[in-house]
Amino acid sequence: MSKFIVVEGLEGAGKTTALELIKNLLSGQGINFVTTREPGGTPLAEKMRDIVKSETEELLTPEAELLLMYASRIQLIENVIKPALNDGKWVLGDRHDMSSLAYQGGGRQIDQGLLMPIRNAVLKGFEPDLTILMDLDPKIGLARAAARGALDRIEREQIEFFERTRAVYLSLANNNPKVIVIDASKTLEEVQLQLTASLTNWLNANNS
Amino acid sequence: MSKFIVVEGLEGAGKTTALELIKNLLSGQGINFVTTREPGGTPLAEKMRDIVKSETEELLTPEAELLLMYASRIQLIENVIKPALNDGKWVLGDRHDMSSLAYQGGGRQIDQGLLMPIRNAVLKGFEPDLTILMDLDPKIGLARAAARGALDRIEREQIEFFERTRAVYLSLANNNPKVIVIDASKTLEEVQLQLTASLTNWLNANNS
Repeated sequence: MSKFIVVEGLEGAGKTTALELIKNLLSGQGINFVTTREPGGTPLAEKMRDIVKSETEELLTPEAELLLMYASRIQLIENVIKPALNDGKWVLGDRHDMSSLAYQGGGRQIDQGLLMPIRNAVLKGFEPDLTILMDLDPKIGLARAAARGALDRIEREQIEFFERTRAVYLSLANNNPKVIVIDASKTLEEVQLQLTASLTNWLNANNS
Repeated sequence: MSKFIVVEGLEGAGKTTALELIKNLLSGQGINFVTTREPGGTPLAEKMRDIVKSETEELLTPEAELLLMYASRIQLIENVIKPALNDGKWVLGDRHDMSSLAYQGGGRQIDQGLLMPIRNAVLKGFEPDLTILMDLDPKIGLARAAARGALDRIEREQIEFFERTRAVYLSLANNNPKVIVIDASKTLEEVQLQLTASLTNWLNANNS
């Protein structure tokens, strides 16, 4: 049966490298998959991404940011992810709902009384079959992200923002059988070995 | 003290004409005011309006539409409406929250379990001092709107959509001292007389 796999993590934690490795592993097993990214991933959701990422004089309020993230997410779920899964394809996502819980809920400290009703109404229990969390101290991640180019609006937040974000990521992963945590502070080779072993195990147990 | 006045109503109910008349009345009393429109009214909110109004192959889900409306609204409240009121200016709005309750809650029949938590978290009790509801049978309003040009994505909904929208508008206005209902089925002259009399009364009682 088709599966929805998501890669999550802070800036500079190696999401892109992980996604490439996972694509190769899935292709190697003859699995037909589509890739998505969030926010964005449909024509309308990409317009919402532009608003979230844009550098403007006008302050984007934390509440508006949250609403845009979920508006983007529901467009992607309804128009891309669910149709692909129904069509027998797997879906590999660059970020999904755990990012909103971590960044908006943790980093921005959005009121859970706003976050949870929106989340529940949009997702209606829909969730990834597997999330791979690339875990890294944000001090290291941000240094890596800065080294490869200019940081966007969200990436320029203070270090405390990312520490709160990471704390939520780790609490969501704790004792959750649908989350694999990868220690992204290791060398590239060690990370790739760890990821390959974990995902291969998971595929052997779940790809039937 | 500065006031926030909103004009509401279905397509073709004469909102634009009402807004012009109100501007003249306010100016005539030497009141300094700014005008807004929703969705939109700030650079970022106008980008959200473009998404809501755009004609695309991709279906904008009712939930995403709702989230965009409130993302737009909070940008406008925080960046335009509240600063203007704090600055001693009045604000005259072309639509505000009552539109979401009527169109998304009534017309689209969005789950109140989604609508109300978002609304309460975004507005935090903020509301217009006065709403002028231009009330009209949607059959008449849509014929007027169609006669003046192409209808947009929302304006092309079925008549039942607008009948549900109107029913919510009227139920919100019922026994609400902050809403004046104008019978927009009358001739232009009668509508203008009715509006002028009602608003002048209200200004005499409230502009102190």
